[in-house]
Amino acid sequence: MNVLVSSAGRRGALVQIFREVLHSLFGAGTVVAVDRSPLSAAGMLADHFEVVPPCDSDAFVPHMLDLCRRYDIRLLVPTIDPELAVYSAHRHRFAAIGTTVMVSAPQAIEIAADKLRTFRWFTENAVPTVRTASLDEVLGSPQHWRPPWIVKPVAGSASSRVRRIDSWSELETLHHEPDLIVQEVAQGHEHTVDAWVDRSGRCRCVLARRRLEVRGGEVQKAVTVENPELQDLVRRVVEQLPGASGALNVQVAVDGPTMSAIEINPRFGGGYPLSWQAGADFPKWTVEEVAGLPPTWAEARPSAGLAMFRYDEAVFVKASEVGL
Amino acid sequence: MNVLVSSAGRRGALVQIFREVLHSLFGAGTVVAVDRSPLSAAGMLADHFEVVPPCDSDAFVPHMLDLCRRYDIRLLVPTIDPELAVYSAHRHRFAAIGTTVMVSAPQAIEIAADKLRTFRWFTENAVPTVRTASLDEVLGSPQHWRPPWIVKPVAGSASSRVRRIDSWSELETLHHEPDLIVQEVAQGHEHTVDAWVDRSGRCRCVLARRRLEVRGGEVQKAVTVENPELQDLVRRVVEQLPGASGALNVQVAVDGPTMSAIEINPRFGGGYPLSWQAGADFPKWTVEEVAGLPPTWAEARPSAGLAMFRYDEAVFVKASEVGL
Repeated sequence: MNVLVSSAGRRGALVQIFREVLHSLFGAGTVVAVDRSPLSAAGMLADHFEVVPPCDSDAFVPHMLDLCRRYDIRLLVPTIDPELAVYSAHRHRFAAIGTTVMVSAPQAIEIAADKLRTFRWFTENAVPTVRTASLDEVLGSPQHWRPPWIVKPVAGSASSRVRRIDSWSELETLHHEPDLIVQEVAQGHEHTVDAWVDRSGRCRCVLARRRLEVRGGEVQKAVTVENPELQDLVRRVVEQLPGASGALNVQVAVDGPTMSAIEINPRFGGGYPLSWQAGADFPKWTVEEVAGLPPTWAEARPSAGLAMFRYDEAVFVKASEVGL
Repeated sequence: MNVLVSSAGRRGALVQIFREVLHSLFGAGTVVAVDRSPLSAAGMLADHFEVVPPCDSDAFVPHMLDLCRRYDIRLLVPTIDPELAVYSAHRHRFAAIGTTVMVSAPQAIEIAADKLRTFRWFTENAVPTVRTASLDEVLGSPQHWRPPWIVKPVAGSASSRVRRIDSWSELETLHHEPDLIVQEVAQGHEHTVDAWVDRSGRCRCVLARRRLEVRGGEVQKAVTVENPELQDLVRRVVEQLPGASGALNVQVAVDGPTMSAIEINPRFGGGYPLSWQAGADFPKWTVEEVAGLPPTWAEARPSAGLAMFRYDEAVFVKASEVGL
């Protein structure tokens, strides 16, 4: 069986995990990585690497369908936010050629992609969260808001352009920047909770990891934790989220018994390799589903108390081989 | 022979390189890593890992001397800016117990640690650079300066608090921040040039790598390049820098024939593993010097056109083992 990792970028570990899963299940199998840039470390680690058009170009879907046919791809794994809506909208076309895309339905993607919609959805579904509004709304009703806040783009990924703002005067300097949202500061430790939803919409596994250190938006140090209330909350979120499927993660700030859900990412998180090491083997269960094998998720006992410490590994290649 | 890597942090590759060098030269040898935090990925990759006091505490040097005795350390490799002055000032005490510290003399450290002093030293030594002054000086003589600028701490490491400033009004908002310097924006591509200086003060190897992508102050993608003028410039810098020794790197912006030296780092750079892969084997030559082996640097032919693409690797350990 062959798997394709889309927008592979620096996700070397995810490529290696899928290869390990294929080899442990079938004794063989190919991982194809694609990226819009030829300068992808994960691409260089995969069995095959293809440079593809950007996901917002008209050529993207036909190109990907063609690649999936050519490499006989049974499972396609998106990894970055901008491509989720595209793959979700066209997932039936991939299914028609025998490629399952591990992606949630468009409704789930739309809720997750827009942080104001996420906030409204949390509120409507009684998921504890932090007050969130557009920058214009906050500037227009100062009597209802007090600093400090977190300001971020309504559709941003990772921590790009995320800022802590401590005063009204600081907030006002941002009025010319488009599409910003303002959030009250959530108290407590930030957790990323990985969840896996089977094709029937049931959440079969959740595992929480507490962030210990973040650098440039990527978690560097984290530890898995056992927290039944947190796990129940995230299980409920992903089961109520319409059309959720496959690997997702939910960001939650945890302050003792008080929880504040902050974001939903309907894809593998950057720090997922920790959950994999701890036994939350979403790639294996997804491959089992696609291949029609008996599911093994019920045997999993993901372990709390496993810590991850990242460092830089690298791929070295001749510059001429990658067009530099 | 045993080597100690100080403030090992995330420098997993450097630890692995030293181990490889020791094994290739002697068939054995131990790499000890130390850090002020128990949560060091490189520490977990080393043969031994010790948590030590911060380098600005009075306990630091006695503690390190004690460790060097205990582990029979012949070579100690500092890696972060704040510890360079400490090790340099006390290097004779380490030498007295048989430990060579790969560090330049205090004069070199002082010039490199303070970006205003670096600028003056470049100017006095006819090294092309970019105009640099303290924030107060620039604000006090507006007739002599024009935006845009790069603003950074006078003693900062990596890209911490480095900002591009495009207007006087923006610059003025920074007046309350202490110890900032203002630099004209250097044109061209940023290069890091690794240099190795033997104990006689002669530079025996330089290798330039062009930065392709930086993330959170750490180079993510880079490629080694051949540029005789750049190499000559950096060779001259490190040979004129008083008391330079071991591995250093110089940041230079290169715009065709125009070069602007920006910083000197008298230590291994974070992106050094690329130069090692390309054949600039500073760890081996340093170990040879310390061990009294015949030097092999003259045989090295570091290759241009090698590219590095980084991704995240990780060490996984039980949280209880690291006190979490």
